[in-house]
Amino acid sequence: MTTLLEHAEALDAADPLRHFRSEFALREGLVYLDGNSLGALPHATRTRIAETVATEWGEGLITSWLGADWVNAPRRIGDKIGKLIGARPGEVIACDSTSINIFKALTAAISLQPDRSVILSETGNFPTDLYMMQGVTAFSGGRIQAVTAAAEEVLDRLDTNVAALLLTQVHYKSGLVRDMAAVTARAHRHGVPVIWDLSHSVGAIPVDLTAANADFAIGCGYKFLNGGPGAPAFLHVAGRHQKAVPALSGWFGHNRPFDFDDDYVPADGIERFLCGTPQVLGLAALETGVDLIARADMQALRRKSQKLADLFIAAMAERCADLGFALVSPRDPGLRGSHVSYAHPQGYAMMQALKARDVIGDFRAPDVMRFGLTPLYLRYVDIVTAVETLADIARSGAWDTPEYRVRAAVT
Amino acid sequence: MTTLLEHAEALDAADPLRHFRSEFALREGLVYLDGNSLGALPHATRTRIAETVATEWGEGLITSWLGADWVNAPRRIGDKIGKLIGARPGEVIACDSTSINIFKALTAAISLQPDRSVILSETGNFPTDLYMMQGVTAFSGGRIQAVTAAAEEVLDRLDTNVAALLLTQVHYKSGLVRDMAAVTARAHRHGVPVIWDLSHSVGAIPVDLTAANADFAIGCGYKFLNGGPGAPAFLHVAGRHQKAVPALSGWFGHNRPFDFDDDYVPADGIERFLCGTPQVLGLAALETGVDLIARADMQALRRKSQKLADLFIAAMAERCADLGFALVSPRDPGLRGSHVSYAHPQGYAMMQALKARDVIGDFRAPDVMRFGLTPLYLRYVDIVTAVETLADIARSGAWDTPEYRVRAAVT
Repeated sequence: MTTLLEHAEALDAADPLRHFRSEFALREGLVYLDGNSLGALPHATRTRIAETVATEWGEGLITSWLGADWVNAPRRIGDKIGKLIGARPGEVIACDSTSINIFKALTAAISLQPDRSVILSETGNFPTDLYMMQGVTAFSGGRIQAVTAAAEEVLDRLDTNVAALLLTQVHYKSGLVRDMAAVTARAHRHGVPVIWDLSHSVGAIPVDLTAANADFAIGCGYKFLNGGPGAPAFLHVAGRHQKAVPALSGWFGHNRPFDFDDDYVPADGIERFLCGTPQVLGLAALETGVDLIARADMQALRRKSQKLADLFIAAMAERCADLGFALVSPRDPGLRGSHVSYAHPQGYAMMQALKARDVIGDFRAPDVMRFGLTPLYLRYVDIVTAVETLADIARSGAWDTPEYRVRAAVT
Repeated sequence: MTTLLEHAEALDAADPLRHFRSEFALREGLVYLDGNSLGALPHATRTRIAETVATEWGEGLITSWLGADWVNAPRRIGDKIGKLIGARPGEVIACDSTSINIFKALTAAISLQPDRSVILSETGNFPTDLYMMQGVTAFSGGRIQAVTAAAEEVLDRLDTNVAALLLTQVHYKSGLVRDMAAVTARAHRHGVPVIWDLSHSVGAIPVDLTAANADFAIGCGYKFLNGGPGAPAFLHVAGRHQKAVPALSGWFGHNRPFDFDDDYVPADGIERFLCGTPQVLGLAALETGVDLIARADMQALRRKSQKLADLFIAAMAERCADLGFALVSPRDPGLRGSHVSYAHPQGYAMMQALKARDVIGDFRAPDVMRFGLTPLYLRYVDIVTAVETLADIARSGAWDTPEYRVRAAVT
């Protein structure tokens, strides 16, 4: 009978993406299942950042805005990200943080239909999505209401008073995938534009914004794109909505920023959704990560991601049955993003014990252990190691120490 | 008789800050008079960034949020910047862009006195300050009006309907310095909080926010702080105003972001003015620049800056009289920041010709040639070289080529 490990080794040997692992700095012995929180470092990024700092900044100084094309980096990288998510050229821009881009998308959507007064989302959405909505509401002085409803009911709340529906495609806890095309079509029947949070989608699952007739999307650069800690985020605005006005009207969104006029005249295209001066170092790291994942076939990534998760779930069933772990993620691979989550009453302490043994996942309150499955650099044998280690920790009670039971501020 | 050059050499020999120049990457022959647009690269930044990328990100991965203290970087660096501008600990945070921080300060000020409906600034202020005000107005649906008045009249427009006065301390074109304490006191008589844009002040002139009883301030990390292209900016909020609510309520401003609650509960202190995930690479570069300038005595920096400008003006009078240059900056060193500007009808072409001869300043429409005088790394002899080169270009007509006369998009 084939063991789990032998099975995993066979899958690794046949993995068409296996050569990508050597592109990343991952030390021997580490099982990194948190690439959906912070992606690993591509070796190429070290070189690129050193070059950006020493040559472009150090030698080129101010002339590098044109000489090293810093000025076009948000658009150039935006277009590269756009290819990964089925956007058209000129529909995506890389800049600011995900939170800031949510604010831009919300206020832009409101500007398109100023008579509508509701922005809608689901309870349990990623917190910053909800918080940014609440900020819009507070600043509007009550003109705009932020409404949330349970995931299974939120689409029933669509009506002609909704200015924007803000949903995450792959849920950050469960990994559940929403059907982008179907939800968008349903929202459009009420004239509601949808803002898709693609933070756990981009680089993780195939996305086709154009096919879905999507309106707006935002997402994160530091997860599956491997853009580095606090990498610039991105914002997608469908061409037909690019006359919308984001409330964050900074000088880089101006039609002619270097005329230094007193009056804001927004740029015609996606550049109007820029705000302040672009963060050049962060963009350089992001571009390197995007260039790397762009070399992989997205369908192959998806297939491997699903097989990694299937193996994880099968191994958990074989090794950790009756140890109190409850699968939170969908069992159907078609409904699941690129992470698997399990609830466990001692999830926090277990995750600490795993980290102490060099298996890194993360914990999401109140009881969710989350394992990110990044097909670009994970091996099937890593999955087996992770589950075997977790089984050992759970059986031996190694998680039950005062140190591991204390909740840290950041996990 | 002493020549200009001999005079400059004597000043350099006696310069107590002269040892700082070797801390920067500045190639031989370059005269860099644009440090007020993009500061030069400190050698230490190369090392620090390489370490942040390879060790903190590459090896520490997600654990570096705590292990390398990324999570506290905005506050830690904010406090370091705070020392340069006379703020109290816990009043400054390093994050986002200057434009975004202007929006936070404006909306926070409005939240303190929601019955007031005007935000006030001066015509000819730095464009992004005005543009962000216009964005607030547009999004408010007319509830908030953005009013501008000429510099000499703006203080006459203060009244009890003004929610915030947004002014720049050192004007980006002329270098004229506003009296922060006097303006703040006058605004306070109408109950108006002032938002000071310190982009051309921080690291350039002594600032004492506490002595001025300042309310809010924002500023730039990539000019005199040498934080790198597109470096994170900073935001100061006086302790007494920290219950204000910025409209940009992202998860890093939450009281307990890692509880992942649906409801936004702002942090108690300056952290509530964070928004999205901090940009770690940019913050690392910024911190290195801040640490470097913090080693210099601010009074000594100010004295040298004034003497560099005095020399520039004297040399221009000696070499470039009757060549059509008109001093835009105040002649009184006490009223002048750390750059000098001259208007010239052919200013754009002249600046291109200067750059071709390795003297780098910048041009601000319609006709201003701007020369940044960064006392941390400039020598007095550089000033003489710059003026001699400009005199030669103006006299020889070397500026008068089709190539130099074309306005580029970015200058």
